[in-house]
Amino acid sequence: MKKVPYKIYLSEEEMPKVWYNLQADLADRLTPFINPANGKPCTKEELMQVFCEELVDQEMNNKDAFIEIPEDVRNYYLMYRPSPLVRAYSLEKALGTPANIYFKFEGMNTSGSHKLNSAAAQVYYAKKQGITKVTTETGAGQWGTALAMAAAHFEVDLSVYMVKISAEQKPYRKTIMETYGANVIPSPSNTTEIGKQILSEHPNTGGSLGCAISEALEVAANTENCRYVLGSVLNHVLLHQSIIGMETKIALEKYGIRPDIMIGCAGGGSNLGGFIAPYMGEYLNGRKDIRFIAVEPTSCPSLTRGKFTLDFGDTGKTTPLIKMYTLGNGFIPSPNHSGGLRYHGMSPIISELKHGGEIEARAYGQTEIFDAAVFFSKHEGILPAPESAHAIKAAIDEALLCKETKEEKNIVFALTGTGTFDLAAYSAYHAGNLTDHIPTDEELERGFATI
Amino acid sequence: MKKVPYKIYLSEEEMPKVWYNLQADLADRLTPFINPANGKPCTKEELMQVFCEELVDQEMNNKDAFIEIPEDVRNYYLMYRPSPLVRAYSLEKALGTPANIYFKFEGMNTSGSHKLNSAAAQVYYAKKQGITKVTTETGAGQWGTALAMAAAHFEVDLSVYMVKISAEQKPYRKTIMETYGANVIPSPSNTTEIGKQILSEHPNTGGSLGCAISEALEVAANTENCRYVLGSVLNHVLLHQSIIGMETKIALEKYGIRPDIMIGCAGGGSNLGGFIAPYMGEYLNGRKDIRFIAVEPTSCPSLTRGKFTLDFGDTGKTTPLIKMYTLGNGFIPSPNHSGGLRYHGMSPIISELKHGGEIEARAYGQTEIFDAAVFFSKHEGILPAPESAHAIKAAIDEALLCKETKEEKNIVFALTGTGTFDLAAYSAYHAGNLTDHIPTDEELERGFATI
Repeated sequence: MKKVPYKIYLSEEEMPKVWYNLQADLADRLTPFINPANGKPCTKEELMQVFCEELVDQEMNNKDAFIEIPEDVRNYYLMYRPSPLVRAYSLEKALGTPANIYFKFEGMNTSGSHKLNSAAAQVYYAKKQGITKVTTETGAGQWGTALAMAAAHFEVDLSVYMVKISAEQKPYRKTIMETYGANVIPSPSNTTEIGKQILSEHPNTGGSLGCAISEALEVAANTENCRYVLGSVLNHVLLHQSIIGMETKIALEKYGIRPDIMIGCAGGGSNLGGFIAPYMGEYLNGRKDIRFIAVEPTSCPSLTRGKFTLDFGDTGKTTPLIKMYTLGNGFIPSPNHSGGLRYHGMSPIISELKHGGEIEARAYGQTEIFDAAVFFSKHEGILPAPESAHAIKAAIDEALLCKETKEEKNIVFALTGTGTFDLAAYSAYHAGNLTDHIPTDEELERGFATI
Repeated sequence: MKKVPYKIYLSEEEMPKVWYNLQADLADRLTPFINPANGKPCTKEELMQVFCEELVDQEMNNKDAFIEIPEDVRNYYLMYRPSPLVRAYSLEKALGTPANIYFKFEGMNTSGSHKLNSAAAQVYYAKKQGITKVTTETGAGQWGTALAMAAAHFEVDLSVYMVKISAEQKPYRKTIMETYGANVIPSPSNTTEIGKQILSEHPNTGGSLGCAISEALEVAANTENCRYVLGSVLNHVLLHQSIIGMETKIALEKYGIRPDIMIGCAGGGSNLGGFIAPYMGEYLNGRKDIRFIAVEPTSCPSLTRGKFTLDFGDTGKTTPLIKMYTLGNGFIPSPNHSGGLRYHGMSPIISELKHGGEIEARAYGQTEIFDAAVFFSKHEGILPAPESAHAIKAAIDEALLCKETKEEKNIVFALTGTGTFDLAAYSAYHAGNLTDHIPTDEELERGFATI
């Protein structure tokens, strides 16, 4: 076997020209979105009122395993991709493990995360359809930043409803979106009916993702040539994120490497779903030689303690009903610093795979994932986002198990982003101010009651 | 000619194994450091009281054009290098220029800049010599962050004297250094005699780079097994930064590309010196087919309006005398957001090349470089550091000239770092709050009077 370099980069010729659509392998297992008004599956026409047509087609496509990446999107990807597949030689040495640890690093772009992979695609399709404006919400700010970059490039207007407390705590996230020309509105706001209503009832609220979604949806519905875009959960978002897995597979196969374990953090599920996509496709078709592990925070344990059932995607109950693992649309997670993992639900695809036993799930507390993050940063040089640190913690734990069992397993994880915009969280960690709130059974029951 | 990809990455086998030492081509032209106490050239023994031995050897080596990069440093480089050589296709299209624009992007590491190239080498040599602690100063924080990462990796203690006003304005820079285990002390401080003296005279001062240097030097001198390290200006720093130029040359030559113009921003001169090193070596040996352009802010115009003379490297007049372009060690630049370019002097190598006419210099105002930065970020996706934006502005201006003259020149510039930690500056730009103070002739004269 060739010596594996520190980083494997694909050449332009080696870059994937197709996304992998896991729906094709799960066709008879996935439940369609349900219209709560009539209890029937949502039609394409209903979804097209909110989303761009080609994205709706992708959302509903359970036939084609491979979907071509448009040339303009591939060219945009070439500005910041391929992302490196890194062999964590320093980390292995520090752990003294016989395991081979690899990570796919998605943080090497200005937005700092994998979110750009779907942002570019969604804005491209909007532009192609003649849409002149898109709206979205953002909590932690990674999705909003990625979308602002893509919207600037493809010259589509963008309004971002940013959870008010996040906009105040992360002013630089707002600045970077504005630098790319986005209109950033702290939510709840006076620009929408739902925003005004919430403000009149709760004038001092810091907002929530659920409220920001409702505002963005309202504007998209009432503005000509405007659509709403979403950064996770949906099938078409996982499809676009499969660029991560496709690149990973090509890179590993160049060196004859087969993963034994694949690990990703899971909030809405887009990075994990995209990362494992081509390998999970093989698994579902009979090649069952890989363990897949989803990692979530103990404070928001949808996969490990949630229910697999129909629920709304937002607290305002304005979305279709989605079959997924959920803590209930009314569940309010404690203020964990992994903003990207604070969501009551989970991607339908990831949920189905967990339900079917194809994916394992585990949860970690906030302090232990920061321990892992700091350890990792000292040895591998990269300061990870707290979300990504969940995957790091699981990879380290698996590598330490290999040390006990003396197994040279190939552990591959997705490092979704950098911690550059999370330094307030690192400060709190150093000061010993992190809290780990694990919801009680009673708190979970209160969440389930909102389903 | 092969089609040039968006990004050229070198394989591990292609990575440089040597640095390029421009002193070898300038041996009879450079003035050694002068000991102000006796007016004689500093001896190796004198310099070794402050710096590690091998770094002093490199500082004084004017014989060897190539110096081997130690294996441990090459392995550290492999964790975040090679940096990509990017073809700016989107920028070219937006400008409508026939020029081919390339940039070497050094921001793809957690410290966000090229500073890590020398930090890794300096800490490695310290460790090798048995030094257990190093001290330094940092203003904008790029150097301190890079050094903290390297010190954590090679397990050497680090104290960073951070200009107090910077520590207050950029708390996240402090956090990231602390995450890597560095001891960050806002300067002036009560930990040194010079700090106490300054505090007693100016209790409310926000500090200065000159004062922070003096404190770091004092601690290094009075602590066992401790040395001082510096992030720019010195010959050995330019030597380490030549990894930028070596990689650039190998990457371009793979595609048969020869630069017509090479551009870099210049504060202390380390990135520019490293970026152009191997090409300038050829130039000095007769191949005069490239224009080299140094870009600085109009607010701190050492190359364009300074004097080429002997001066101290710090305001406290504690360093040897250095032959360089200088605005006078007492010159106080206005609070420009490009903290890395606010230095009264300039690398002796860059100074000599400017003096000899081998390098051109130009200066831009703060607002116009932010205009260029925002334009660049929209088209190329990367949000640049304000320092780097000086090079971008010059590259755009040269590309627009090519549009007029219909020349397909190859313009290659160094993009030294990201603007991720400069979002307060971008905020000020968007709010229209940037000021451009160009020093008057009288202000320059007051600076020169301190020489």
